[in-house]
Amino acid sequence: MTCQEETEMNKVRLGIIGIGNMGTGHAENILSGLCPDIALTAAADRRASRRAWAKEHIPDAAVFTEGEELIASGQCDAVLIAVPHYQHPGLAISAFRHGLHAMVEKPAGVYTLQVREMIAEADRHPELTFGMMFNQRTNCIYRKLKEMIDSGELGQLKRMSWLITDWYRTQFYYDSGAWRATWAGEGGGVLLNQCPHQLDLLQWLCGLPVRVQAHCHIGKWHDIEVEDDVTAYLEFENGATGVFVTTTGDAPGTNRLEITGTRGKAVCEHNELTFWRNTVDEREWCVACREGFRKPDFEKVEVETDGLNLQHPAVLNAFAAHILRGEPLVADGREGIRGLILSNAMHMSAWLGREVTIPFDEQLFHDLLMEKCKTSRHKEERDVTISTEGSY
Amino acid sequence: MTCQEETEMNKVRLGIIGIGNMGTGHAENILSGLCPDIALTAAADRRASRRAWAKEHIPDAAVFTEGEELIASGQCDAVLIAVPHYQHPGLAISAFRHGLHAMVEKPAGVYTLQVREMIAEADRHPELTFGMMFNQRTNCIYRKLKEMIDSGELGQLKRMSWLITDWYRTQFYYDSGAWRATWAGEGGGVLLNQCPHQLDLLQWLCGLPVRVQAHCHIGKWHDIEVEDDVTAYLEFENGATGVFVTTTGDAPGTNRLEITGTRGKAVCEHNELTFWRNTVDEREWCVACREGFRKPDFEKVEVETDGLNLQHPAVLNAFAAHILRGEPLVADGREGIRGLILSNAMHMSAWLGREVTIPFDEQLFHDLLMEKCKTSRHKEERDVTISTEGSY
Repeated sequence: MTCQEETEMNKVRLGIIGIGNMGTGHAENILSGLCPDIALTAAADRRASRRAWAKEHIPDAAVFTEGEELIASGQCDAVLIAVPHYQHPGLAISAFRHGLHAMVEKPAGVYTLQVREMIAEADRHPELTFGMMFNQRTNCIYRKLKEMIDSGELGQLKRMSWLITDWYRTQFYYDSGAWRATWAGEGGGVLLNQCPHQLDLLQWLCGLPVRVQAHCHIGKWHDIEVEDDVTAYLEFENGATGVFVTTTGDAPGTNRLEITGTRGKAVCEHNELTFWRNTVDEREWCVACREGFRKPDFEKVEVETDGLNLQHPAVLNAFAAHILRGEPLVADGREGIRGLILSNAMHMSAWLGREVTIPFDEQLFHDLLMEKCKTSRHKEERDVTISTEGSY
Repeated sequence: MTCQEETEMNKVRLGIIGIGNMGTGHAENILSGLCPDIALTAAADRRASRRAWAKEHIPDAAVFTEGEELIASGQCDAVLIAVPHYQHPGLAISAFRHGLHAMVEKPAGVYTLQVREMIAEADRHPELTFGMMFNQRTNCIYRKLKEMIDSGELGQLKRMSWLITDWYRTQFYYDSGAWRATWAGEGGGVLLNQCPHQLDLLQWLCGLPVRVQAHCHIGKWHDIEVEDDVTAYLEFENGATGVFVTTTGDAPGTNRLEITGTRGKAVCEHNELTFWRNTVDEREWCVACREGFRKPDFEKVEVETDGLNLQHPAVLNAFAAHILRGEPLVADGREGIRGLILSNAMHMSAWLGREVTIPFDEQLFHDLLMEKCKTSRHKEERDVTISTEGSY
């Protein structure tokens, strides 16, 4: 089937820029038939080995070295950008200028100034679809929790705590890519590479905090120049507080999200959502109760969800359906900046050794990051693509 | 039976100073036969209503207004000090000087300088027994975890997290005592009143941290002048980190302690101890493994304990057995300062808005606390004794 025929069949002609760990996974999903609205018509990678892989496995696709060549080729209606983070905004901006829809891998970028440029360009092309690969938003647990929060079932937010320490990585992982875990190549460590999902979900569920104090430990568990261990304290506008703890050094690690509101407590752990539902709002109970130690009565509920957790293919399918039929995205690309604001604020708090308020000085963040890039270590390219199966 | 006969039967003649919430509970335990080595021979309380209670319920006991009178009366071999925290060290010092053994309710005191005086006096009387009422050390879960840590089963400490937010209290509770939840009366809030157990267990299990940064919120959930919501970040000497989150405002709240070492992860929650045991030390695995995402293999174990959780009577029985037969205490009184160091450091970090290193400037802490006491609010005495059953 030719590209022309694909278009006639009303499929989105997609080009993947970056056939590395993530891009390969996306390509395999599409090739295996999980994305019926998408035709994979192009691929780009700077590494000859990955271009060879693309030629072998995607015989119908045009293969390019540079993302810009792919964008200019006319072979695609849309691009999926899965290259190192620094390049996300530049390629997305170029895609929009060429009239292409863009799906961007997380994080949206490395610093917010560049992401704001990307959003501004997207806003100049309201006819184009701009999506972020926040595949964890498709998880039934988080979707259900979001629904409960939005409907008021938890009451007003009081506290949140996320221990997300099951992002284990070996030293081999860090040695496998020249750009990986360097300031110049990746712009950060666990906050930029592994945690964009949780930082997005955090702001999606609880909103953005207004104050952040973070303790980021550099190369604590691995020989790297960026953080692999973070503990952050958060304060939200209504006074609610939070902690966010992450690392790539703990095994087996924990993934436990607890959100407490005035009407109860929700915990996501072990792929289950449990809710302790107060029979009365705690704020009313506190002043009305004539006993000293008594809590509001509550019931513990194992919350039922729809059980669906469709991950990356679902994000791509929604992207295509948005382009073709105006159906809703999983995550609008403009929302990508919010999790990045959180990680930038955590970095800056650690660098300055003090609390950072949001919004923060985005130019200062950029300048501090560029300083770090100047002395960023050079790593040898090893041309390794690792299967990411089960790792995100 | 006369006091003389009790002594001849080789019981410890105990006087309880303070027949409030805690003192009453101790008296009832002894009166109900849970402490066979102890004869309750005296009681003191400044409130007439509590002295009347003592006369009615402890007919064999001499009843006093002042603790000092009880100490000087010759009716006791030992005292149990269960009065407002500021008075703990002074009464213990007086007891030692009168040749009496002393069991002190937690916290050991309000500031470390006064506790150091108490310890110095105890050290001048090595023949006397000095115990702290750390009843949570009798809990089989924590005893077993301590044994596992000490035996090296967890490996080197990497991270700890304690969400201890199930100390719920109503406004009625805070209104029930004139000294409660004031700087001058109690010297603090949830850190001083509810958390001494957890702060002691934290240092007992993990050692004292060397750095603390805490966010203490004053009267956030209640009309009080002290903290009722705390999030603290900890760093230990070997670089391990921790978070400690507590409040009296969450319902139903959480009590979840997680300790991660290089050989696995232990979690105490819902009165269960679960251990994820790595088959190989993570630190060795990290550098040896030739895969990027693979964790060490592990097994999940529901840890068996002896099931015993004897609480306050066990602490008192060990105290009596130490006096009578030299058997081990649950907690030596000298260890009481360690949890207090932690709470003082958290308070001072919040007051100064910066990280505090341990050891800290104890005179500065004292001076800052005394400043707060100067403007401490006056509350009307309401003469209420609340049953503490199930609350500690």
